[in-house]
Order: sequence, then C-alpha cells, then structure tokens
Amino acid sequence: MSGIKVVTIGGGSSYTPELVEGFIKRYEELPISELWLVDIPQGKEKLEIVGNLAKRMVQKASVPMEIHLTLDRKEALSGADFVTTQLRVGLLDARAKDERIPLKYGVIGQETNGPGGLFKGLRTIPVILDICKDIEELCPDAWLINFSNPAGMVTEAVLRYSNIKKTIGLCNVPVGMRMGVAEMLDVAPERVHIDFAGLNHMVYGLNVYLDGKLVTDQVLDILSSGASMTMKNIVDLGWEPDFIKALRVLPCPYHRYYYQTGKMLAQQAEELNEKGTRAEVVQGLEAELFELYKDPTLDIKPPQLEQRGGAYYSDAACNLINSIYNDKNDIQPVNTRNNGAIASIPHDSAVEVNCVITREGPKPIAVGDLPVAVRGLVQQIKSFERVAAEAAVTGDYHKALLAMTINPLVPSDTVAKEMLDEMLEAHKEYLPLFFHEERV
Amino acid sequence: MSGIKVVTIGGGSSYTPELVEGFIKRYEELPISELWLVDIPQGKEKLEIVGNLAKRMVQKASVPMEIHLTLDRKEALSGADFVTTQLRVGLLDARAKDERIPLKYGVIGQETNGPGGLFKGLRTIPVILDICKDIEELCPDAWLINFSNPAGMVTEAVLRYSNIKKTIGLCNVPVGMRMGVAEMLDVAPERVHIDFAGLNHMVYGLNVYLDGKLVTDQVLDILSSGASMTMKNIVDLGWEPDFIKALRVLPCPYHRYYYQTGKMLAQQAEELNEKGTRAEVVQGLEAELFELYKDPTLDIKPPQLEQRGGAYYSDAACNLINSIYNDKNDIQPVNTRNNGAIASIPHDSAVEVNCVITREGPKPIAVGDLPVAVRGLVQQIKSFERVAAEAAVTGDYHKALLAMTINPLVPSDTVAKEMLDEMLEAHKEYLPLFFHEERV
Amino acid sequence: MSGIKVVTIGGGSSYTPELVEGFIKRYEELPISELWLVDIPQGKEKLEIVGNLAKRMVQKASVPMEIHLTLDRKEALSGADFVTTQLRVGLLDARAKDERIPLKYGVIGQETNGPGGLFKGLRTIPVILDICKDIEELCPDAWLINFSNPAGMVTEAVLRYSNIKKTIGLCNVPVGMRMGVAEMLDVAPERVHIDFAGLNHMVYGLNVYLDGKLVTDQVLDILSSGASMTMKNIVDLGWEPDFIKALRVLPCPYHRYYYQTGKMLAQQAEELNEKGTRAEVVQGLEAELFELYKDPTLDIKPPQLEQRGGAYYSDAACNLINSIYNDKNDIQPVNTRNNGAIASIPHDSAVEVNCVITREGPKPIAVGDLPVAVRGLVQQIKSFERVAAEAAVTGDYHKALLAMTINPLVPSDTVAKEMLDEMLEAHKEYLPLFFHEERV
Amino acid sequence: MSGIKVVTIGGGSSYTPELVEGFIKRYEELPISELWLVDIPQGKEKLEIVGNLAKRMVQKASVPMEIHLTLDRKEALSGADFVTTQLRVGLLDARAKDERIPLKYGVIGQETNGPGGLFKGLRTIPVILDICKDIEELCPDAWLINFSNPAGMVTEAVLRYSNIKKTIGLCNVPVGMRMGVAEMLDVAPERVHIDFAGLNHMVYGLNVYLDGKLVTDQVLDILSSGASMTMKNIVDLGWEPDFIKALRVLPCPYHRYYYQTGKMLAQQAEELNEKGTRAEVVQGLEAELFELYKDPTLDIKPPQLEQRGGAYYSDAACNLINSIYNDKNDIQPVNTRNNGAIASIPHDSAVEVNCVITREGPKPIAVGDLPVAVRGLVQQIKSFERVAAEAAVTGDYHKALLAMTINPLVPSDTVAKEMLDEMLEAHKEYLPLFFHEERV
Ligand SMILES: [Mn+2]
Ligand SMILES: [Mn+2]
Ligand SMILES: [Mn+2]
Ligand SMILES: [Mn+2]
Repeated sequence: MSGIKVVTIGGGSSYTPELVEGFIKRYEELPISELWLVDIPQGKEKLEIVGNLAKRMVQKASVPMEIHLTLDRKEALSGADFVTTQLRVGLLDARAKDERIPLKYGVIGQETNGPGGLFKGLRTIPVILDICKDIEELCPDAWLINFSNPAGMVTEAVLRYSNIKKTIGLCNVPVGMRMGVAEMLDVAPERVHIDFAGLNHMVYGLNVYLDGKLVTDQVLDILSSGASMTMKNIVDLGWEPDFIKALRVLPCPYHRYYYQTGKMLAQQAEELNEKGTRAEVVQGLEAELFELYKDPTLDIKPPQLEQRGGAYYSDAACNLINSIYNDKNDIQPVNTRNNGAIASIPHDSAVEVNCVITREGPKPIAVGDLPVAVRGLVQQIKSFERVAAEAAVTGDYHKALLAMTINPLVPSDTVAKEMLDEMLEAHKEYLPLFFHEERV
Repeated sequence: MSGIKVVTIGGGSSYTPELVEGFIKRYEELPISELWLVDIPQGKEKLEIVGNLAKRMVQKASVPMEIHLTLDRKEALSGADFVTTQLRVGLLDARAKDERIPLKYGVIGQETNGPGGLFKGLRTIPVILDICKDIEELCPDAWLINFSNPAGMVTEAVLRYSNIKKTIGLCNVPVGMRMGVAEMLDVAPERVHIDFAGLNHMVYGLNVYLDGKLVTDQVLDILSSGASMTMKNIVDLGWEPDFIKALRVLPCPYHRYYYQTGKMLAQQAEELNEKGTRAEVVQGLEAELFELYKDPTLDIKPPQLEQRGGAYYSDAACNLINSIYNDKNDIQPVNTRNNGAIASIPHDSAVEVNCVITREGPKPIAVGDLPVAVRGLVQQIKSFERVAAEAAVTGDYHKALLAMTINPLVPSDTVAKEMLDEMLEAHKEYLPLFFHEERV
Repeated sequence: MSGIKVVTIGGGSSYTPELVEGFIKRYEELPISELWLVDIPQGKEKLEIVGNLAKRMVQKASVPMEIHLTLDRKEALSGADFVTTQLRVGLLDARAKDERIPLKYGVIGQETNGPGGLFKGLRTIPVILDICKDIEELCPDAWLINFSNPAGMVTEAVLRYSNIKKTIGLCNVPVGMRMGVAEMLDVAPERVHIDFAGLNHMVYGLNVYLDGKLVTDQVLDILSSGASMTMKNIVDLGWEPDFIKALRVLPCPYHRYYYQTGKMLAQQAEELNEKGTRAEVVQGLEAELFELYKDPTLDIKPPQLEQRGGAYYSDAACNLINSIYNDKNDIQPVNTRNNGAIASIPHDSAVEVNCVITREGPKPIAVGDLPVAVRGLVQQIKSFERVAAEAAVTGDYHKALLAMTINPLVPSDTVAKEMLDEMLEAHKEYLPLFFHEERV
Repeated sequence: MSGIKVVTIGGGSSYTPELVEGFIKRYEELPISELWLVDIPQGKEKLEIVGNLAKRMVQKASVPMEIHLTLDRKEALSGADFVTTQLRVGLLDARAKDERIPLKYGVIGQETNGPGGLFKGLRTIPVILDICKDIEELCPDAWLINFSNPAGMVTEAVLRYSNIKKTIGLCNVPVGMRMGVAEMLDVAPERVHIDFAGLNHMVYGLNVYLDGKLVTDQVLDILSSGASMTMKNIVDLGWEPDFIKALRVLPCPYHRYYYQTGKMLAQQAEELNEKGTRAEVVQGLEAELFELYKDPTLDIKPPQLEQRGGAYYSDAACNLINSIYNDKNDIQPVNTRNNGAIASIPHDSAVEVNCVITREGPKPIAVGDLPVAVRGLVQQIKSFERVAAEAAVTGDYHKALLAMTINPLVPSDTVAKEMLDEMLEAHKEYLPLFFHEERV
C-alpha cells in the first residue's frame, strides 16, 4: 500500500475528530492519503459539520491527507485499504428505547450484552453484512475494523455469515483497564501488561504484569480496597472486596452488570428518574459538541470531546491500523476468530483476546482454559451472542425470544416476551427482516 | 455376588419403605440377602420406627431378606455390594434455613443448584467423602449410589476428591419427565424414549421418541399449550409457549428456577408467608408419616408416602441396582463421569446423561455438543458445582463466596456475601472445616 | 414396520447364504417378508445361482420370506426398511491388482487401510454415494448397513458427502476378537465383554471383562504367551510378548500390518510366490462354492462356506438389524459418527466403537481419550481415510497421492507416486472421476 | 536484571564460540556481565580450550563480559538469569551407536525422533531433570533454554516431570526454513514470514508470506521444481513434485525421514559404508575445530565452524534471550506448552509453534487445527515423545519398548525389541534407571 485509503462509515459521528487527530499524529509512519467519511442521508448535516472540522484540522497540521465526504458508500469503498464502521442504526433515539423499555420491566437495558444490546445487534448486523458485500466487491483486500456495538456480536455475525475474513472488532475497555491498573500502581501504562481473554465487554485480565513481573494479587488487593477502574458510562458501585479476592482475575467494568445486577438495576432506575437514560444524556452532550464543531475557527479536536466517554477508542483504532500497516507485532486485545485461543469456546466463534498484530492481521495468543469460575458466564454470553446473531440474519422471532430469555439479565421467559414484543414494535422501521411478512 | 448385601446410609429416612418395597418386588431377580439400614445417633428413633416397618414388610412378603439396623457404619459397610446414601446433614431444620435465609435477601434458596444447594453441599460433601474412605477400606468393590442432594455436586466431589470410581448419582427428575411426556402423549411410558443430557436438576431432553420415532416437536407443542410436567415440590407457573418453541429441547422442572426466576421468587415468597418453607411443610408430612409407620399392624408401604414427593426415587434406585447386578444393558440417565459424552464439559466432571447400565457400571452415551442456547447455563451451573465442591473440601471462605456469587440466582456480590455470612453462622455446627481455625 | 423389507446390494455374493441363514434363524423375532437381492448385469449368473439357493433354503425352513432377484436397484429400494451393501466394484480381479501391484514395490497391499484399500475406496465410494441418492429418494427412512470394505472409509464418506444419516458400517473383526478371547479364557463368548474403540480394522479392546470383572491383564498375558487371535485371512506371526505387555490394550488382527510391517511384508511376498494373492486364492474358493450352490438339492448353507473367511459377518449383520428392529439395547461395536465418543477424533468423523443399539439407531458410548501410545496410529489412519474419501468424491489426483503417501505402509513419496500411477491405470475403468478429463 | 548472568551447561561444546560471538554482537542491548561455561570432568580439556578462546574473543571485542569456566554446576547456577543446556550425554561415541545399531537392523537411527532419538532422550532427560532441581533451588526465576536434542521430548519431560515452568526448547530448523525460503524467492529473510506449527523436527510451515502477502503456493511450486531447502546434516533427495503440491504446507527437512523413509534408509546405509556414521564424521570435524581453537592467536569465531552444521543455532538462542530480556514481542518458533495453540494436541504437551516472545516468556499463537493430512504423523510423533519421556523418568523397560515400536521408522515389534535390547546394553553406563535393579 502506498498512500493508504481509509473509509469511515458513520463518518458523521461526534467521535470522528478523535480519529482524525489520531491519524494526524501518526502521519509520518501511517501515511493516509485519503480519508473518506461516509454517512447516510439523515446524517448529512452532521457529516458536513464534522467533515469540515476534519478538513480544518488536517490543514492546520499541514499533512497531505485528503478528506472526502460522501453519502455514496460504494464510491467511497472502491479500493479502500481499511474500512472502519462506527454506525448507530436508529441513532441515539433508538438507544434511548433500548435503555428505557427494559427498565419499565425492571431489567437493565445494557446496550451491548443485555436486552438493549440484542436490539442494537438486530438493527446493526444486517447493515454491517451489507457493507461486507460491498467490501467483497469493491475492496476485497481491505481490513474491516468495526467499532459499532455490540462489537462481539457483530464480529460473530461477520465471521459466521459473511465472506469477509479480514475483520476485527474493536473496543476501548481493555485499554481502559490497562490505564486504570497503571493508575492504581502509579506507574506509566507502558510498564503494565495484562493477559486479556474473554468476550467483548466480558473480558478478564487473567494475569497482570508490571515490568514483566506478576502483580495480579497486588492489583486485586488494591481493587478490593476500593480503587476504581471503571468507565465514564458505567457507575462504580464498588466491588465486594472478598469477591474480588475470590475471583482472582481482573474483571472489566461491564462485569458489574452481571456480578452486581441488583445494585446496578437500582442505580439505573434512580438515574433514569433524575437525568433520563444515558442515551438522552449523550444526546445533550452531542448537541453541545456539534455546536462547538461548527465554529469555523476551530481546527483541533476540542478538549470537551474527552468528556463524551469512549476515551481511547480512536487511539485504539489508530494503533491497530498502524500495527497492521507497519507489521508492528505488538500485542493488542481485539475481537477475532478464536482458533483455539480460549478453550471451550468454539474455534469459529469471535472472542476478545490478546493478539499479536502483524501485517497479516491479528494472531490470537493461546491462553488455554479460562478459570473454572468464569467459564460459565462467558459461555452464557457467547450463547446469547450466537443466538442473537442468528436472529439478526434470519429475522426469526423465536431465535430473538430465545436470545432474550437466555440473557443473564432477564428474569423470566414472560418478561422476555413482553420486552421483546414491545421493543420489536418500537424499532420496527429498523428491523425489516422481522416485519417483511406475517409472523407464522 | 451371591446373596447381595446392600447398605443404606441414612436408613432412617421416611423414604426407606419405598426402597424396601422396591427390593421386595424385585427379589426374584435381585436376591438381596442383607439390607443394612445405618443412621446416626440423633436418628436412632426414626431408624427403629422405619426399620421395624421394613422388617414387617419383608415378613409379610415372605422374602428371605435380613434387615439390619445399626449406628455403626463400619460394621455395616464391611463386604457390602451396594451402598446407597440418602443423607440429610442437619436434617430438615437445616433445609429450612437453606430456604428461609436467602428469601430474606430476595433470593430463591433452591436446595440443589441455588444458595441452599451450596450449603447443603458444604454440609454433605465432607460426610460423603468420609464414607468413601470407609468404602475404600471395607468394601472396595462396592458401588456407591448417592441420592443425597445436591447429587450433581456430590458426584463431582466424589469423582474429584475421593478414590472411589464406582460411584453414581441418582435423581428422579428424568424418570418424572418421561412419565410426564407419556401422560401428555397418553401412551405407556415404556414407549417413550428421551435423550437426556445436562447436569443434575439442569437436564434437558434433547430428543423425544415415541416407538422410535422423533416426536420432540409434538411434545413441545403440547407443553407450550399448557400441559404440565412438573414435580410435587416445584410449582408449575406455565411456560411461555413461544419460549418453549424457541428452546426446541425439553426443559426439566428445575429449569423454571432459571428461566422464570422472577416469577418463581414471587411465588416462593408468597408460599413462605402462607405455609412456611417447603422444609417446614415436609416436616409436617414426615411427622405424620412416622406416626403411620409406628403402627405395628402396618406391613406395607403406606399410600400416603407417595404424597411426600420424591416419586420414582426408590424405583430409580432399585432399577439401577438391578441393571448393574443383572447386566441389563438398559439406558438410564444417571450422574457419572462425563468422559466426553457432552462436549464442552471437561472429561473428568460429573454430568447427568443417558448411560447404558451394565455390570461394569454405567457407560455414558456420547451426545456431542449441547444446543448453543443451553450451553451457557449448563456451563454456569457446572462452574458453580465445581467451585462449591472445592469450597466444601477445603473449607475456603473465598471459594464459598465465589460459588455463591456466580450462582445465576444470586443478584450481586454484596448480597452473596451477606447471605454467605449469615448461612455460615446458621449452619456452623455442620461446617467444621470452615470454623476449625481463624479465617485469614 | 410390519413385514420388513430388506434389500441386499451385491446380493450375488458368495456370502449371501449366510445372511439368508441368519434371517431364517431369527424369523420369529425379525419377520422379514421380502428379501431383495440386487446385483449388476455382470453378476447376473451368480445372482441367480445364489438366489435360487436362497429360495430353496427359505422353502426348506418354511418361513414366509419372499426372495426377489433383480438387476433393477431402484425397483428393489422402493420402500425398503434396511439396505445392506456388500459390493466389490471390479470383483476379485480388482482386488488381485490391489494386492499384486503394491507388492511389486515392496509394499503390503492391504485391501482396507493400505494402498489396496485406497483403491478399493476410490472404486467403491462413488457407487455407495449413488446408492445413497437412491435411498434418499426411494426409502428415506431405511437404514443403510454397509459391509463393503474399506468400511471405515466408506462410512466416513457417507457421513461427510451424502444426506443419509441412518448409516452404519459393519465389520466382523470385533466379534472375532471376542470369540478369540473367549477361546483363550475357555469360556462362553457371552461371558466376555470388550470395550472396543478405534477405527475399522484399527480397533482396540481397551478393557476386557469376564462376567463383569476386568481381566485385561490376564488376557494380554495369554496373548503374549503365544495364543492366537487372528482371522482366516491374516496370518498370525506371533506378537512380541513384551510388546503386548507394553501396549496394555488388546490389538486387532489387522494391527499386525502396522506393528509388524516388515514381517508381514516378507510373509506376503512369500505367499504370493507360492499361492498367488489372497484375491486369487479366494477366486478359487468362490468358484468351488458356486459349484456347490448350483446343486439343486442343496437347501441349506453349505458348511464349506465357513472356510471362506468372513466368519461372523452375516451374524453381525443379522444381530444389528434385529437389535434395531426390536430395540434390543445391546452393545455392539459398529462404525458410526463419533459424536465425541473418542476424544481427539472430530465429532463428525466415523469411528468404530461400542454402541448401544436401539430402534433409533446406534448410540456411541463415550470412552474418552485413547491411551497415549495408540492415539498416533489411529489418527494417522483417520487422516488417511479422510483424505482418501475426499479423493474418491472429487477425483483429485493430488488428494489420492496425498492419501497414498501418508499411509503408514508406504515408504516414500516416490514409491507412492509410482504405485498410484500404475494402480490408476490398472483400475481405470472403475475410476471415471479420475479420467473424465485431462489431468491438469 | 542488571548485569545478566548466563550459564551454559555443556559449555565445552564446539558450538560455544558461536554463542559467544552472538552475545558480543548484541552486547549493547543485551549486557551480559557473566557467562559461565559449565562442563563435566570428562570435558575439562575441551572446556578449557573453548573457554580460553571465549576469553580472547571477549577481550578482542572489548566488552566487559566475564567468562567463567567451572565443573561445579551448582556454583555456576546460583543467581543465574538464563541457563542454556547443550548436553551430549555419552558424547559423540553414544551418537555413533544411536546411528549405527539401528542401521544393522535396516532402520534409520535418526538422532531426534527415531530410535536414536529415543536413546538420546533416555540418556539426556534424567540429567536435564537434575538440572531442573538445581535451578529450582539456586535460581528459581531463571529461564531454562534447552538446545539439547531431542528438544521436543526434553521439553515434554521438563513440562511434565519437573517444577520448572520457565522453560523453552530451541531448534534451528525453522530459522533454516525461513532462510531457505528467502533464498528461493531471492529476497531478504526479514521479508518472509512463516506460520510454523507442529513438533520439534516435525514442524510445518502452514502459510508463507512475503511482505505480508500469502505466497505459499508459489513457494511450494519452487520447492517442487527441485529447489533445495535442507540442512547440512540431512541429505536432499528431492521431493516428489506432485506430493509437495498435494501436501499444500511446507515440510521441514526432517520430514524426509518420514515421507521418504525408504530412500533415506538406502542413502544412510550407503553413506555408512563410505564415510561412517554422521557422528563419526562430526568427530573428525570436531577434532579439527579444537585444533584451531587451541591457537592462542585466534580471537574470533573461526569461519570453519560454519561447516559444522547447526547454523543459526546460536543466533536463534541469542535472539530468544534478547527478546525475553528486552520484551521485544517478536515472533519466534520455539518449543513450549501448547495451551490450545494446536488443536488435537493436549494443552499440557510441548509443541513447536510460533510464539510472541515477551519478558513474560513465549506466548503461543493459536493456529487451530492442523491440516487433516498431517495430523496423523504429528500425533504419532507426539505419542512417541510422551511414551519415551515416561520411559526416561521411570526406567520402565516396557515403556521404552512401546516407544520404540510405535516409532514410525521401526518396522516391527520384533525388530524394536532386538534394537532396544542391543542399544540398552550399548548405552548401559548412561542409563542407570534401567539397570539399577533386576528387570522384572
Ligand atoms: Mn466496547
Ligand atoms: Mn434430584
Ligand atoms: Mn472388516
Ligand atoms: Mn533441532
């Protein structure tokens, strides 16, 4: 590749300036000649706002990176080297429903591995698989790097139901955990290494090293003494110290939804009353951001963006692309085909696991068996992801109900059905496969 | 073996007359010459009441089966051919606590795979492992057939932490399912075959056959139209018809605790208010039974016993012993070493699966992978059983907390710890391993 | 089924009278109303000779079993309950080449798992897959029971490349081993049970029981003291006593080809000089048998047939059909889908393993891992079978060469290619897939 | 670590100057302050010759690396950071017997995975396990890097029978393959990447990349047109072009012994007649080298050493140590615990597979299933290695016989026993475990 062509689908996202900044910073070793920002007609206005900011940023930085804005996905994809997807089918309105409807039934929405995530998957997967068909035709050698949630379920679907093999799902959770551990230990993040393994938003740190020495127990001790390691969008209710000692591996912030279900539900219900759903909060933040972006004198990523959540996402993305392009052989935790890396997960399923990143793509590091105590929950989410992905590609009502019922956050088959029916209706316009004919 | 010697530990149980009746009925092909009923000093009175009834039953039936009553386990075990265990460490009082304490925290006690089952396991496993040591010394060729709950966890512990290989865990749930299906189809049970696989109280009917033809869909249709297939001790709240269609395999009655957690909890809380715990109800039933048993003119199993629950248990036990003794090669679902029969469960773990029963013991039938949708829950309960068994043999507080927290009925680490601490204290006298020294 | 219809493809075989005798003996519990013997035009004469004998046998026995002779396979298959296949594509002439050509290169032909078996598979598999298509259309509920060698490779091919799931591969080797052990122990065969596991003609007795007690060591001791346990068609050169002690499981007679390659080769070369190939010897025996069969006064299976080799084959077949029809639940070693029964062999591959035989078919008993020492050879033959089956269905020259070269009897890639080329040419008329177009 | 301490056991080897040169070249990033060369009393003279050359080399290069020569292993090991082992128990005389005795029986000796390798393992493994005990006591944090053959069997034994987890087996074959491919493609080796997987001396290149693009087919085409890729010590008889096309993965030079057994045997027999065994040839080379080494004016590695074979060994060793020390995260193929990296090989067995090399050690890259065609041979050698390692630690005659007989180079149980008995006698003084008491 000389003169790299990157296509970002969902380019009108408020995160785009971070991505652009990341590319600018790395321009010397990662010479992107064309960055295509693609969006759908409804996103045209935002695309232009963000796109113009991107152009000003590039100009200010004096790097010869062309910014293209388009609503024509096929035009953009032609000859691409890297395709990134940061979609939100149905926008934040849909997410608000994903969060609000379950709460009516006393259930956490959880926009990735919960009922909300099921619906985000049902809306997103068919779109991603359409993109896969375009890639196959227009840029068969490109890497598809997906940031759209639920990233684990999406990667599972791409591996299982498309012909694209060069695909990677990306998440900022592991980076955040490494940063959090570094902070707890009061050391530079580069000195910390974590053996990550599990699924997206269900990833564990099996071992933690400082300068190559095992410090897992020490880190778990600090964590059980109340140190925080969470994310902007997940409240930290504190772990039960003895539980963390008992677990003996580092949980991720999303584990709170499963190991602290009752407490998290109460907290979410309260927050809903006070501030509305997280989606609604984000809508406010986004509106403010786009106001900033419009300012024609702004030519850098505005610092307010960091308040938005999603820290490290673009950094993770840029690092991943950079490592592939430059064959860096560094270790990054990504979502990829398991291939035996985690025992008891099928070889052909997606997992989130440390990989060495080469120009041939990510190569998963074999970690063997997960600890007995965590195998069950991981397997349960994997079952959920697989059944949900099957529902998404078939539009099969019963598969969707099955996915909903086996989700560990859902308290009964009856509640599952009630939520499912209400959510199907609410998201009807984004679920053509479920409504294209009479349900039998 | 000529003149079979059977030893029943916990012989003073109210179920014993059923077992005795089963042995009497099969005497011709299963010539038991000695039946030793063993109990502990606190159970002496009941042992004598039941034992005397047993003697009258044998006499009435004119079979030359000697009934021995003893408090000396070692004397009984010497030279035994079959040892059955039907223990209740702490008696029904302990079970009442297993049920009542969790309900205080808004959690179903579930005396087998729930928090109650964890404590029943912690109390029972060390006693069973002691019996294993006696068997190794006094009757190393005997078969140990365990009916004590949690039968899956106990079998896991015996396989993992004793030297006894000839062990089988037994449950009446699969027999009950077969009876239930036969009733739904209105046919004789012998015409129905079910491919059972899973764990104890977490077993699925993967395929259902009538006269060798697959009728799974037909049976699931009947089940989703509201037909019942439950047990005396598990209320039937009705399955969500679409869920059953979606599941595509036959669940067991205990699955209600996991697929209908919310509803079952509400129901149990209500029942507690009205009638007390199930343990307390059973205490009443038992008192009545023992009054009946005392009647010196009673020389058959009184019909009231069938109201007690546990239907088919003794029948299952007698059939199992009979098939081993007579090398019957019939298929029975029992708890045994997996050996690869169910993929994704370790070879050395206990599973409940169809086995062909031979004089060399049960040989598990390989079923391959469980359906994707049920793999997660099964794995989660297996994780729970393994961690719980490890806690039981080590007395490790953190392992116990880990088992409690990963149990799918438990809503958070904090609730887990609170319940654990209260239950440890409540059962203190039966948990010497947890209290023999200061907890670190 | 009432009035069972059995179709025997390759019905003109000299073995047929044994099969007919077996059906007659079992008529009371296995009421076969129609037995269709099917053959190809070249086999018309033999079919008539054998068929007429069969008719006389049935008449003499006074059982109402209709014997039909036909060259029209489709007519025969319509509505069949059981289809047995005992084909020899290319007849004994082809087998003679399978044996003679390899010997020219200093290689044992071995008509099942050796170079000869590769070619027998290449000739046979496409014919069997054609039969599968007919079964799918004309009798989709029938059981396909294949006796044709190489039975393991054929079963692998049917499982992998046809839509027929109700298929079983059958071999007399395990029955013979059981008989041999009974003889060594001087007991009735019914008292002996062997845990069989492995592949066709590569099967081991993992444990041997007499009346339910383990006697493996005792049997291996007898075997290492020189007792024989072989088959009519495999010379017994004696096992190295220390090797048998070291192996600790019971080998099958065909294992001599792999554990005694050098000696067997020398022996075969010598025998070739003296008597010609085994195929040629059999041709003589067959000619004599057909002379006998022609005798219009003969109305029983002539005792000379037992000299022919293949002892127990028909018995095994009749027992298998009987157990399926009558849901006998007895344990029989057959070739079937592994399903996890033998660890380290893929679930979807054929294995030869003890199964419980029910009206729903054979259910494999999980044996877990094979002993370390035998895993390699078993895996190697499984690799050979899979690559050979792929070659047979594709007609791919390179796959055929790969199968030939990885066969443990073949000493080098060069010899493999030379043999392959000569054998392809020699069997040209039976290998249309390999010659339908120019090899690239 | 500051001031790295390296201990080389078998330091008197003729290879040592290469290692020293490698350390000198890398001194800046790999500051070894002490290099201890350890040998046994019989090797004292050679140790001094080599050690003095090492001292001169260091002095000439002006690096502050202390060279210590000692016969006291414990003194050397105390506080070591890296321990390398390059032993030859019984010296080249023993190797000559490993090669010569099998040839008498018409069998290739093959000093690693053949009968010769079995005996090299029997002699070497107990010594290595002794070293492991010393390491546990004297430098428990050290890395044990073993070059001694049979490196796969030795690594298996260390993983299975010692408490040392930080162990790596090293071989120059993969480096040689990469060099060979680079030469075939006429490109710099750095541009070639190969996905290595298998066992020591039984490793395959599953995929070959040039600049990140798959070129496997192209490389196999070149290889089948006669290009060579072999080693000094393995003659290249040419691959059968169609076989290489059929195999579709890159074999290693040692594969000739298994895929070209007949030809290799003939070649070795001829060479024996002409030049004696390879061991004897090497003895001559070594004598010449030591003459050179004695020259007090020599202060560099003499170029003649490169004729000795074993090219790249020291380079591989230095690179490995360097990557651990500097956390380089580069990919190197080494022998390590499988951990699921190669499906169908147990997790706890040694494999040779690409690993990313970090300061926490090598992390194996999951490759999933090996191609069907090669799984069998790999499994067979793994079985051989495991049984042989068990024989080595127990001194069990029957295990040794079992290992010998299942080796794919050995033609029969009888030949196996004859060779075994002769070789046991020949190596008696180095096999105390086999002779410490009367064989039962
Ligand atoms: Mn994420
Ligand atoms: Mn039960
Ligand atoms: Mn056979
Ligand atoms: Mn090597």
